[in-house]
Amino acid sequence: MRIGLLGFGVVGRGLYELTQTRSDMQVVKVVCLEDVTLPDAQVTRNFQDILEDDSIDTVVEAMGGLHPAYEFVRAAMEAGKHIVTSNKALVASFYDELIPLAQEKGLMFRCTAAVGGGIGWLSEVERSRRAQTITRVGGIMNGTCNYILDSMTRLGLTYADALSQAQALGYAEANPSTDVEGIDTWHKVILSSNIAFGISLNTDTVPVAGISRIGAEDVARFTEKGYVCKLISTGKRTEDGFSVYVQPTLVKAGEPESAVPSNYNLITLVGNTSDRMSFFGQGAGRYPTAYNVLQDCIDLLSGKGFYSPYGEKVSAVNSGKLRYYVRGCADGSLADVAAESWEGAIITAPVSVEAMHLWLKEHPEAFIAAIAE
Amino acid sequence: MRIGLLGFGVVGRGLYELTQTRSDMQVVKVVCLEDVTLPDAQVTRNFQDILEDDSIDTVVEAMGGLHPAYEFVRAAMEAGKHIVTSNKALVASFYDELIPLAQEKGLMFRCTAAVGGGIGWLSEVERSRRAQTITRVGGIMNGTCNYILDSMTRLGLTYADALSQAQALGYAEANPSTDVEGIDTWHKVILSSNIAFGISLNTDTVPVAGISRIGAEDVARFTEKGYVCKLISTGKRTEDGFSVYVQPTLVKAGEPESAVPSNYNLITLVGNTSDRMSFFGQGAGRYPTAYNVLQDCIDLLSGKGFYSPYGEKVSAVNSGKLRYYVRGCADGSLADVAAESWEGAIITAPVSVEAMHLWLKEHPEAFIAAIAE
Repeated sequence: MRIGLLGFGVVGRGLYELTQTRSDMQVVKVVCLEDVTLPDAQVTRNFQDILEDDSIDTVVEAMGGLHPAYEFVRAAMEAGKHIVTSNKALVASFYDELIPLAQEKGLMFRCTAAVGGGIGWLSEVERSRRAQTITRVGGIMNGTCNYILDSMTRLGLTYADALSQAQALGYAEANPSTDVEGIDTWHKVILSSNIAFGISLNTDTVPVAGISRIGAEDVARFTEKGYVCKLISTGKRTEDGFSVYVQPTLVKAGEPESAVPSNYNLITLVGNTSDRMSFFGQGAGRYPTAYNVLQDCIDLLSGKGFYSPYGEKVSAVNSGKLRYYVRGCADGSLADVAAESWEGAIITAPVSVEAMHLWLKEHPEAFIAAIAE
Repeated sequence: MRIGLLGFGVVGRGLYELTQTRSDMQVVKVVCLEDVTLPDAQVTRNFQDILEDDSIDTVVEAMGGLHPAYEFVRAAMEAGKHIVTSNKALVASFYDELIPLAQEKGLMFRCTAAVGGGIGWLSEVERSRRAQTITRVGGIMNGTCNYILDSMTRLGLTYADALSQAQALGYAEANPSTDVEGIDTWHKVILSSNIAFGISLNTDTVPVAGISRIGAEDVARFTEKGYVCKLISTGKRTEDGFSVYVQPTLVKAGEPESAVPSNYNLITLVGNTSDRMSFFGQGAGRYPTAYNVLQDCIDLLSGKGFYSPYGEKVSAVNSGKLRYYVRGCADGSLADVAAESWEGAIITAPVSVEAMHLWLKEHPEAFIAAIAE
């Protein structure tokens, strides 16, 4: 396998290093904007150098971002090159173009590192669907949020201090909004659901609530009541179709999710015969992520294509009801569903996920957390 | 694939049911001693009916026990049939005969359900070793022990009551010794280590301590000190070779292992690039176990053989030191390593795993638990 590598940041450099000792693949050209010199690969600023090199059979995209990653990946596919990427935003956002294109052109396309970093999550979803019907996917998919929530819970930090600490440790970016607003998790659960259920979700119908408005006073109340707050994604089959959403969720102390420390992930699959299986590991980091990019390259060598056939376009139906913790509803707009008062916040009677997220859009200053079923 | 199925108990019947809707495989004959009638498979008490049927390419062994499972599997292999089994005792005990024989005869041999039931553990070990050096395997591998320890910890039950409850729920057998003395876990960590490290362990050098002597007074002390007791297996690369053992272990409340409830397993792999990955799920049960037997059959269809090449014979070297909780050392034989006293028990200074297990052999009435590193 002759690889053209796009990007030489954390993941790209990690993959380059991991391929050094292998005889079955070689990074032959690297597109990056920094001044880098490599003994065995040509470094270029010009993507055309990879695109026009017919000896390169596989493009590994490790640039991140939507543009020009999308244009480069698409052009590489048009030129008949197989794709490996760790870019969840890219695959979730352009699922309807990239996956059918790969199928149409008979190209292999893998993105295992896009969800769960070092965890072989998407490859296990692929394996699972050979033998059973998957009924549920989701869990703790973002290490930044978990680090912040864990620090607030265990160390009693404020949100601002926990975020600063995460930034100092390299677990959060200078602009953390993609992580803390839940967008990263949203991409991951959309991608996981598409593959697990063989569908293509209408992303507009998948609501997301993040953690940026959580306060130390919320966390103190949760601890007092025996709950731990985690950002949890859900994708499940229901009688009405598929219910998919991302939201802060209160889990009971003692549940596996409650014990996920630091920047780890815990991602769960439920199937009609395997029952529950969960995967715990580093959701990010150079070598864990590069490890799964390497695994994808190895899978390409054995002819493995995308994880599931491209499926029908569907809208999520989030009519299932949950109880919610809500702080910031002083305008009385939730008075008719308030079931309990928790000093300055309320616990609602069961309300639909859809209705709660619609309410949140009108009240962007509020903080909500579902109470786990 | 035409399957000859040995045994029609929990797992065998589960596999039969799961194959009913598939067109790529069929159970054509079943050996069992009970009176069973099946619409689409011949039921026989005579193994020769499968052995001599050249149309049967694969034997699925779901009888359990060493004999006659070993003789049947061996004869089937001599006759050129591929093997799928969920029998950890069989594969761990006859590793040196069955795995080289499969290699020699070019036969496929899979046993994914043997460790972790519904968790795709051995198949993930296989995947992992393609891309990195595995440095550690192990964890909570026995649901019966976890159920007993969890009930003692969370509900304050005595050992006898927790065991009775496990038996009433079908989580423990009438004679529970294979589970509670750690033998089942011992088979699983030997098999996992052999595959992960590409070795064949001298099983005599792998020590095991079980949970049958734990008392409510021990658990109360652990809780008071912020520890949770779990039966944990360890297989790791060290500077001296490989260290492999099974023992009750005190983990801090808040660590992922501490939160494993009921009869679940949590099995961990550490690799030099992936870092830690853990797998949580049902370690037993009809459908979870049959699910992985089915997965093995699907892997056979794609030509997948055993997980790793048969490797060199090695003895475990357990010279690494740990601190231990020991109750039942009133004879003063540990006085020189006692570092702390916990009302009726001691905490030792770091002592080698090997030395502690040798001491335990001389003091079979004692209860020991390592304190996790």
